[in-house]
Amino acid sequence: MRMCDLILAKKEGRELTTEEINFMIKGYSEGAIPDYQMSAMAMAICFRGMNKRETLDLTLAMRDSGDVLDLSEIEGMKVDKHSTGGVGDKVSLILAPLIASLGVPVAKMSGRGLGHTGGTIDKLESFDGFSTEIEETKFIESVNSIKIAIAGQTANLAPADKKLYALRDVTATVDEMSLIAGSIMSKKLASGADAIVLDVKTGNGAFMQKEEDALALAKAMVDIGNRAGKRTTAMITDMDEPLGNAIGNALEVKEAMEALQGNGPKDLMEVVFALGKEMLLLAGRAENEKIAEELLRESIAQGKAFQKFEEFILNQGGKKEQVKNAQLLPKACHVIPVAAKEAGYIKRIFAQEIGLACMTLGGGRETKEDQIDPAVGVVLEKKTGDIVKKGEILAYIHSNDKEKTEIVYERIQRAYEIVEEKIQKAPMVKHIIRE
Amino acid sequence: MRMCDLILAKKEGRELTTEEINFMIKGYSEGAIPDYQMSAMAMAICFRGMNKRETLDLTLAMRDSGDVLDLSEIEGMKVDKHSTGGVGDKVSLILAPLIASLGVPVAKMSGRGLGHTGGTIDKLESFDGFSTEIEETKFIESVNSIKIAIAGQTANLAPADKKLYALRDVTATVDEMSLIAGSIMSKKLASGADAIVLDVKTGNGAFMQKEEDALALAKAMVDIGNRAGKRTTAMITDMDEPLGNAIGNALEVKEAMEALQGNGPKDLMEVVFALGKEMLLLAGRAENEKIAEELLRESIAQGKAFQKFEEFILNQGGKKEQVKNAQLLPKACHVIPVAAKEAGYIKRIFAQEIGLACMTLGGGRETKEDQIDPAVGVVLEKKTGDIVKKGEILAYIHSNDKEKTEIVYERIQRAYEIVEEKIQKAPMVKHIIRE
Repeated sequence: MRMCDLILAKKEGRELTTEEINFMIKGYSEGAIPDYQMSAMAMAICFRGMNKRETLDLTLAMRDSGDVLDLSEIEGMKVDKHSTGGVGDKVSLILAPLIASLGVPVAKMSGRGLGHTGGTIDKLESFDGFSTEIEETKFIESVNSIKIAIAGQTANLAPADKKLYALRDVTATVDEMSLIAGSIMSKKLASGADAIVLDVKTGNGAFMQKEEDALALAKAMVDIGNRAGKRTTAMITDMDEPLGNAIGNALEVKEAMEALQGNGPKDLMEVVFALGKEMLLLAGRAENEKIAEELLRESIAQGKAFQKFEEFILNQGGKKEQVKNAQLLPKACHVIPVAAKEAGYIKRIFAQEIGLACMTLGGGRETKEDQIDPAVGVVLEKKTGDIVKKGEILAYIHSNDKEKTEIVYERIQRAYEIVEEKIQKAPMVKHIIRE
Repeated sequence: MRMCDLILAKKEGRELTTEEINFMIKGYSEGAIPDYQMSAMAMAICFRGMNKRETLDLTLAMRDSGDVLDLSEIEGMKVDKHSTGGVGDKVSLILAPLIASLGVPVAKMSGRGLGHTGGTIDKLESFDGFSTEIEETKFIESVNSIKIAIAGQTANLAPADKKLYALRDVTATVDEMSLIAGSIMSKKLASGADAIVLDVKTGNGAFMQKEEDALALAKAMVDIGNRAGKRTTAMITDMDEPLGNAIGNALEVKEAMEALQGNGPKDLMEVVFALGKEMLLLAGRAENEKIAEELLRESIAQGKAFQKFEEFILNQGGKKEQVKNAQLLPKACHVIPVAAKEAGYIKRIFAQEIGLACMTLGGGRETKEDQIDPAVGVVLEKKTGDIVKKGEILAYIHSNDKEKTEIVYERIQRAYEIVEEKIQKAPMVKHIIRE
């Protein structure tokens, strides 16, 4: 078998066999197939696509290129949750303790990643002493005893995907649907969960800006998951404006803590409940959606969800004082209000602009080596559908640098689209895909 | 400017600017742009193509990546001739001295290359002592004094093309028309000729098997040449069966010597005269085709063409005895006849099969390091349109190895397609493209 012939086959629109895909991923992973052949193949796939069988084979080959975690020592049905990423997405911070508080095991591997804000781990590290560098035995013990643990992605999960993703990133071959689906699902399938809930964001602040693209990606991923023997559900949720009000690491932790105590913003809670219900259904913890929703609301109302959060943070080295008093989390020196330049209804808040503002303030990472400032970010006071007077406060900038504040001020002002006619905010969950 | 953005542009079907193409070729040539980005670009070009302006820019950028020869010290109009390659193609061996004998300067750079038989230089090296390793001054002096010299491609011509071609070869991106045209023409434009005649082969023994592809390539190359300020003509000629009767290095030299003395096979001479006439017209040596043809035929009839061949071979170190007596050129130990298995008319001789047979006998090169055996090859006794009896001789195998003879015997037999109905051989020149 020669890689050159496989490239030709795909270029001419022929289907690749399972053996050919295995040969390709194994060879690429081991270095026998060079980058320049793999990038030509990726480009051919961008034009010709892959069918469902090919996509599944690619995913499984990438999954099997590294460790596949065995979480069988953890009792109960383990449901993993993954988001394609958006601005202000702190859903995992809320869902993990909420689900765990209902007895469903949460054994989560998280990354740091690049982006407007840090990943889940970066956010949690706003707590002094909190660490995700935990041994496998402690990880499993923690989940079995308190039902929740979050570990850094130390295991060698889907290294072929890592290598291929880095190559796609510099060869303009990132946006092909089967390659994206395979990339995400190879890591999810290697993570050892029994079922998977996917939050596929759509809108101007999401990777998939068009709803039809988000839908296609969601369908491809659900197909892979189910064919690979893991029950998988995907939800298409709105990312046309930032999720919730806080954007920035410690700011999002504070919002998550509020949410766990029943004071979460409406749009954020809509997504939390939708995904949470699905997780409880997949875990067999609730018979139907109605019961699932009751369980979730009860846990929050009775303080169990927040109690679990506290237990979780302390178990991984966090300080009690900061959990008891969120005011003790890192705080920015300057908090500057952004005023509305005109009156009217908020039609939209360009999520990407707000995300970039947070990045500029130092809240995100452009390269792996960048340090994150946990304190900085933006807190929105007005959201889509709200009415605003001229000069009224739209948002607060939390900054540690006056120069940067000036740069982002106008950016945030411009991110708000204000119109005369009344605006009705659309539902957060646009589609649920189960097969 | 980032290569990744250029790949994306081409992938999405956008036209690349002159600056972008220059950036890309310069960067790739110098190693700033890695192979994996260039191969993704090449694949995107396979799907999206390049328009005439882009193709010209690519060609000029590749031309300018190395030396551009200055042949201005050579008096007269220099016309270069290039063939896309075929089985039994010894046209240059005949045309070069024939044209030179009419006072038109022939200053040729030739390569060795890979293929069924060697390149022009390999063929000429059938003469003991013949060398193309000549200094630039001697090269120019020779052309000025005896009107002909052939040098090995020692100059650094279009290195970017060389690098890109090697990459395309292993990434299934060889067959895109603008890339092929650019590759050939970048070298031709760097070779310093004033005008160019292209012999684009079509048929089962050619790179462009389909006539429409050959025509598209020819048009693309003529367009590049004319836009670059060099008058350029292309001819589409038949390569459905081998050209002439001899295939193999010394065997082809012998056939060329016969042809220069008026005894060339009909199909071969048809191509020689067509290309030769065009060269004389472009050089301004003849006013019209009729005069041009008369000049060519006269030179052969009067012995001037062969005399020029002799002068040329001796000037570059060849031995007089071998020119006077072609029987002294390298000869194979075994000459084995191949008999017809059935009676009928020859409908076609699969050129590629004959070429591969010659390769198997040792007459060609698979890798640059391979040694060529000048003596071996195949001589066809019957050609398309001929009538043949069962058991009659179709061809002779010239071999230095009995085992290899056995391997190719059946291959040659099978290369002949024999039918009951009478066959009319089509004209050799199918199209002439001048603009």
